[in-house]
Amino acid sequence: MEIDVQQAAEFLKANDDYLILMHASPDGDTLGCGHALCGALQRIGKRARAVCPEEIPHKFDYLFSACEKQEFEYKTVVCVDVADTKLLGEMKPVGDTAALCIDHHETNTGYAERTLVRGEYASACELMYEVINALEVEIDKDIANCIYTGAATDTGCFKFSNTTPQTHMIAAEMMKKGADYAMINYVHFDLKTHARISLEQEVLKNIRYYEGGRIALISVPLSLVNSLDADSDDVGALSSIPRQIEGVDVGICIKEKKNGSYKASLRTSQLVNAAEVCQLFGGGGHARAGGCSFFHGAEDAERRIVKASAEALRTALGKE
Amino acid sequence: MEIDVQQAAEFLKANDDYLILMHASPDGDTLGCGHALCGALQRIGKRARAVCPEEIPHKFDYLFSACEKQEFEYKTVVCVDVADTKLLGEMKPVGDTAALCIDHHETNTGYAERTLVRGEYASACELMYEVINALEVEIDKDIANCIYTGAATDTGCFKFSNTTPQTHMIAAEMMKKGADYAMINYVHFDLKTHARISLEQEVLKNIRYYEGGRIALISVPLSLVNSLDADSDDVGALSSIPRQIEGVDVGICIKEKKNGSYKASLRTSQLVNAAEVCQLFGGGGHARAGGCSFFHGAEDAERRIVKASAEALRTALGKE
Repeated sequence: MEIDVQQAAEFLKANDDYLILMHASPDGDTLGCGHALCGALQRIGKRARAVCPEEIPHKFDYLFSACEKQEFEYKTVVCVDVADTKLLGEMKPVGDTAALCIDHHETNTGYAERTLVRGEYASACELMYEVINALEVEIDKDIANCIYTGAATDTGCFKFSNTTPQTHMIAAEMMKKGADYAMINYVHFDLKTHARISLEQEVLKNIRYYEGGRIALISVPLSLVNSLDADSDDVGALSSIPRQIEGVDVGICIKEKKNGSYKASLRTSQLVNAAEVCQLFGGGGHARAGGCSFFHGAEDAERRIVKASAEALRTALGKE
Repeated sequence: MEIDVQQAAEFLKANDDYLILMHASPDGDTLGCGHALCGALQRIGKRARAVCPEEIPHKFDYLFSACEKQEFEYKTVVCVDVADTKLLGEMKPVGDTAALCIDHHETNTGYAERTLVRGEYASACELMYEVINALEVEIDKDIANCIYTGAATDTGCFKFSNTTPQTHMIAAEMMKKGADYAMINYVHFDLKTHARISLEQEVLKNIRYYEGGRIALISVPLSLVNSLDADSDDVGALSSIPRQIEGVDVGICIKEKKNGSYKASLRTSQLVNAAEVCQLFGGGGHARAGGCSFFHGAEDAERRIVKASAEALRTALGKE
């Protein structure tokens, strides 16, 4: 059942003992949402804890001060920024019992009993901001840090085309509430580890171009990642590089995963819908950024994702 | 004489035949200001043209549609985002006759007859937004593109610590007025030429660390720039790289210039005031970003700027 912000707030006020689930491969938006909601619920006297199925990278440590660690038997499951319970990994069975989902993905599968979704919002944190206002919780510096983090990270620091005036208005509001925006921006958008710099140097040596330079692809072998002692952040940051190169409409980054699969991340110009290409291979995402997995080696992954991207690009160019 | 926004608007309404001067090595803020003001003055029936002492990089071409090209004998000189007429190059003598200066540099020398300065603003375009409102000119898409460009480029797309809630509020407002923010952000913050990527690869090979990794320095020989056919944008983008590396408090980029001088660009953490270090060598800037020039070879430049940076860093660390 789809509900609105006010109904979500009423539900949250009427219940208790919340388990808030954030998605695996956690990013600033799901973590910001989860900790902001957890803190807001605790401030109105509820028991709540926010849980992520995977380890949270240390660069997000500052989010933890938005809420207390509470141990209790949960009664009410709320998923935040989780479009599909598949994204919960081992916690999928728990997510399948969700009473409420707060999300900004148009592709939300409607798995929860109640779904509050705004596909047009750049981040789930923008929606969480409205929910917290409806809960009549005063936003303090710690919650402001959470909301700012989601709004900033899901828009590439207000750079991507998904950014809206609302994103900026909420960022301004969070800054007024004391959000430590300079630290947050530095950590997420400036800081590069030595490993990341080396990784960038290495993968750029072997960049491949297709379709006359309109498709650029880099690949990241696990052996390289291990040899540089790079972490998931270092690797994740590579995804945006190929599309940044002049003349490139489709940027692809293929990462070898520990389980032997290959994860392709697409970034596209307005000519190609990244989510649509990735959906051909069981993946998904947004119009300008998507991802999907392959299971038969690096060459197979490259061949198939490039073929599908080239077809989408040619179709778009034919229509121009 | 220091004046306020209303007085600046009254002056602009009372006079005519404006020559608007933008600073050399033009950036998005001076160009955004100049073209926004030129467009606004033309919309209230004034003759105006915006002039830059150096060639304007093509990535700013979209700003030109904010105003018409008008030929006339100028009567009133207005400088925008120009802290010192030295920054006008060959046009310094014209700048020295300025009737009005609109600027956001605390270091403004007060050279103009009337100075409207807001040192706490992240960009001069934020101040220009207020002036245009005071002129009662309706901001259209073209002027919105100008204002958005200054606000975004002077804050590294809202990333730098100089960003304020006001910066975000104005960005939101410009987006509502139709600013083509996705194109502008892509052009200024994402797009990398092939030359720039090669340049980054090459300079990172020879990065030097000092003070246990707290100072990082890259140098850009003119021969490398020429061999890659890199332009000033490609070279300019290198300045931010050393400071982005983990553990680095002072990032330095030394560029060999065509006239045989060496331009050092500093980016610093809050431990070191970049402008203060650069002022030791006749340069200047802001707290987190500054620049200065050396004239006795690359080694001399490196030795002197590193020594001054190390001293500033040690002083700061001693105080901690």
